[in-house]
Amino acid sequence: MPRDLAFTLAGLRAAYARGLQPEAVIVEAFRRLDALGDPGIFLHEARAQALAEARALGAPDGRPLWGIPFAVKDNIDVAGMPTTAACPDFAYDATADAFVVARLRALGAICLGKTNLDQFATGLVGVRTPYPVPRNAIDPALVPGGSSSGSAVAVAQGLVGFSLGTDTAGSGRVPAALNDIVGLKPSLGALSSAGMVPACRTLDTISLFAQSVAEAWELFTLTAGVDPADAWSRPLPPPRLASLPEAVTVAVPDAASLRTFGDTAQAAHFHATVERLRAQGARVRAIDLSPFYAVAELLYSGPWVAERVAAVGSRLITAPETLHEVTRAILAPGLALSAVDAFNGLYRLQELRRVCAQALEGADVLCVPTIPCFVTREEIAADPFGPNSRLGTYTNFVNLLDLCGIAVPTGPRADGRPGSLTLLARKGEDGRAAALALRVERGGAAVPLPADAPVHAPTSDEIALAVCG
Amino acid sequence: MPRDLAFTLAGLRAAYARGLQPEAVIVEAFRRLDALGDPGIFLHEARAQALAEARALGAPDGRPLWGIPFAVKDNIDVAGMPTTAACPDFAYDATADAFVVARLRALGAICLGKTNLDQFATGLVGVRTPYPVPRNAIDPALVPGGSSSGSAVAVAQGLVGFSLGTDTAGSGRVPAALNDIVGLKPSLGALSSAGMVPACRTLDTISLFAQSVAEAWELFTLTAGVDPADAWSRPLPPPRLASLPEAVTVAVPDAASLRTFGDTAQAAHFHATVERLRAQGARVRAIDLSPFYAVAELLYSGPWVAERVAAVGSRLITAPETLHEVTRAILAPGLALSAVDAFNGLYRLQELRRVCAQALEGADVLCVPTIPCFVTREEIAADPFGPNSRLGTYTNFVNLLDLCGIAVPTGPRADGRPGSLTLLARKGEDGRAAALALRVERGGAAVPLPADAPVHAPTSDEIALAVCG
Repeated sequence: MPRDLAFTLAGLRAAYARGLQPEAVIVEAFRRLDALGDPGIFLHEARAQALAEARALGAPDGRPLWGIPFAVKDNIDVAGMPTTAACPDFAYDATADAFVVARLRALGAICLGKTNLDQFATGLVGVRTPYPVPRNAIDPALVPGGSSSGSAVAVAQGLVGFSLGTDTAGSGRVPAALNDIVGLKPSLGALSSAGMVPACRTLDTISLFAQSVAEAWELFTLTAGVDPADAWSRPLPPPRLASLPEAVTVAVPDAASLRTFGDTAQAAHFHATVERLRAQGARVRAIDLSPFYAVAELLYSGPWVAERVAAVGSRLITAPETLHEVTRAILAPGLALSAVDAFNGLYRLQELRRVCAQALEGADVLCVPTIPCFVTREEIAADPFGPNSRLGTYTNFVNLLDLCGIAVPTGPRADGRPGSLTLLARKGEDGRAAALALRVERGGAAVPLPADAPVHAPTSDEIALAVCG
Repeated sequence: MPRDLAFTLAGLRAAYARGLQPEAVIVEAFRRLDALGDPGIFLHEARAQALAEARALGAPDGRPLWGIPFAVKDNIDVAGMPTTAACPDFAYDATADAFVVARLRALGAICLGKTNLDQFATGLVGVRTPYPVPRNAIDPALVPGGSSSGSAVAVAQGLVGFSLGTDTAGSGRVPAALNDIVGLKPSLGALSSAGMVPACRTLDTISLFAQSVAEAWELFTLTAGVDPADAWSRPLPPPRLASLPEAVTVAVPDAASLRTFGDTAQAAHFHATVERLRAQGARVRAIDLSPFYAVAELLYSGPWVAERVAAVGSRLITAPETLHEVTRAILAPGLALSAVDAFNGLYRLQELRRVCAQALEGADVLCVPTIPCFVTREEIAADPFGPNSRLGTYTNFVNLLDLCGIAVPTGPRADGRPGSLTLLARKGEDGRAAALALRVERGGAAVPLPADAPVHAPTSDEIALAVCG
């Protein structure tokens, strides 16, 4: 029976309700991993630890994630497991769980291990790793996407019920699109970053991968909250699925600023998805995305590269050979930037924030394709930089503008490849983006939340998940 | 009659109500300036322009600042006047008013000219200028305080009804204390910074000098507001004098962290002022100010010096001789800082913000002496750096922590020198700091707002100014 079981929160809960034991789920998870034969997904497999935890789990006692297997990107600490950030020389043994991991385990979830990533979370392709590259779950000719490659593939392949990624410039959304799953990128500061290896400390957040919007959203409600020990944690409105206005106003890139790099199927699918929203009553407003692209430019051409250098520390100077050659090439220019450059970059961002905020005035959500096009392993082998940059078209600007967002599968494109839309909202409005995501999920054939799921009673300004699904 | 007239908003309004003409006030203002014989206050005197404006002013038409003469620090643009930032080589002719100046003039105020400052607003002493140093209004042996030296002295000497300063690290509070007037330092982003020469762009604000808390507060309500053209402008609660809790909780430096550099009169006066607050019902909580001092350290020892370099542009490299020698010495180290240093400084600040916020948890206001001690011209001549640094003890950390504040005269110390308390509150809580300032102003003998002043009708959670005075 476990062999046919969907490793979703809903599927696992239903099976547990029928008497399945967590130990059997852990055994099955590793059987699936072995059967898949992909050595690139996990950098550390916690087989013995996970089994022991399953056996010691006890009764559910109301724990909403009781017995749910999950995976953790290897730049987030799990006690008793190494953290490598995909840099073997950087590895250390974590002695404590990251704040979010601790919370998930306290709720009954079981960590199966640590997943592969673009080294130091620098990349959107998933191939910038000294370890084997995880196979894309849709088509092995495609890059798996990154930097949270292993975590996205682990969910897409049904090995875990959910996984943790991180998202500084798109690492929690791009691989979601490339593997046809949901990637929730919280507002900065909503999830504690304690126990996470930084990439760009001012722009980092932990992110969530799941099979559906409803489950990603539930995981967000279970992990969000202020951590007084984390300097980047900040008080935000409690997570609530917003009740959208009757006629929600949706900003979309205008024709001149929609970028798909010749991928006409992507453009057509995006337009069709927007038209479906319009048919459902949304007001669609085309805006010029140029200032958003100008923000994105700052991330790698501006001073923020120096944040990545700061995160890597003296390694770039004292032991450059321990870095992936592509990572090294990206970071090196950061050494030459001055503090004056850094502040001038902050000023430029401040000015662009004003322009972008005005462009979004009156809009409830900004809708963009999650990725502008697909990238193959062959393309990234031929050019390690260009295709990676293209993948960040609709993600790089997001954290610099303090937006939150969710990448949601929108069903197959004309050519069968998966469509993905990202709904972006202002900081603290995660529930608004998620509420709209429920409307477009899998072309309207969204996975509803099962009746027995432990949803908290909706208050007057929440929408019950089952209604939205 | 004008010779005896107090140049306060209240005094001038009363005189105008009795039939005095604005032209006579402008003539009297310049007569006072000539009689004072201090060539250091104004860098540009707009005699003809001010007189012409007074003659062309027309009927009051409800303009609340009708005929009120004011002065503008010479790093803020006034159309038709030069802006120098106290660097002659930097001078340019302003073709438009700064946003705040334009608003004041639209309300009927008349600008008498541009006032002296520590060059590029870098300093708290007022002597770092190539022009004559303004004389301290209390005691010419003392420094005038800076960087808004001329603006503070102009108010203290009764030459204008109010003046504009700027305040990045204390420039709007230290000279208020040294000249026995009120200095209101708004929340960052409350007043548009459009038309202001930057010092540290992320930390700059225009500030207000007046003779009383009530008048400074009224000026704040008249100038605060979002400027869509200014990237640093931000939406904040509308200015309201907060109704303080019955037992307001006031944080004060504990005995170990109160710094007065041997000035026992200052310590005694501060304690007496705090005791008066306690007698009025305040709960006083002593806190360790060490983390606040650690924040202050960042301002000149950390990367923010590079912001000052960015503000000065290439001048430091291409024409260093055009800078004041002390300014040059302060800025030079900023050239050597890297972008990695800048971000590491931001991380350190973020961590300290967390610690300071926790120290202030539960407190409504933080009360500190505005200055820890006085500084004489002789002392600053002997050591251009040390005494300046000391003056910033209680001001340097404020904008880095996104606090707002108001420096208020608390009456004479035992030795006759003026006491000054600064009330600090969280961003957007300017009205809370001002409400408490009214309680301690001049030892409880505050200047009430006259009955005929155009105060906007107080709403239920405002306190009428006349009641508070």
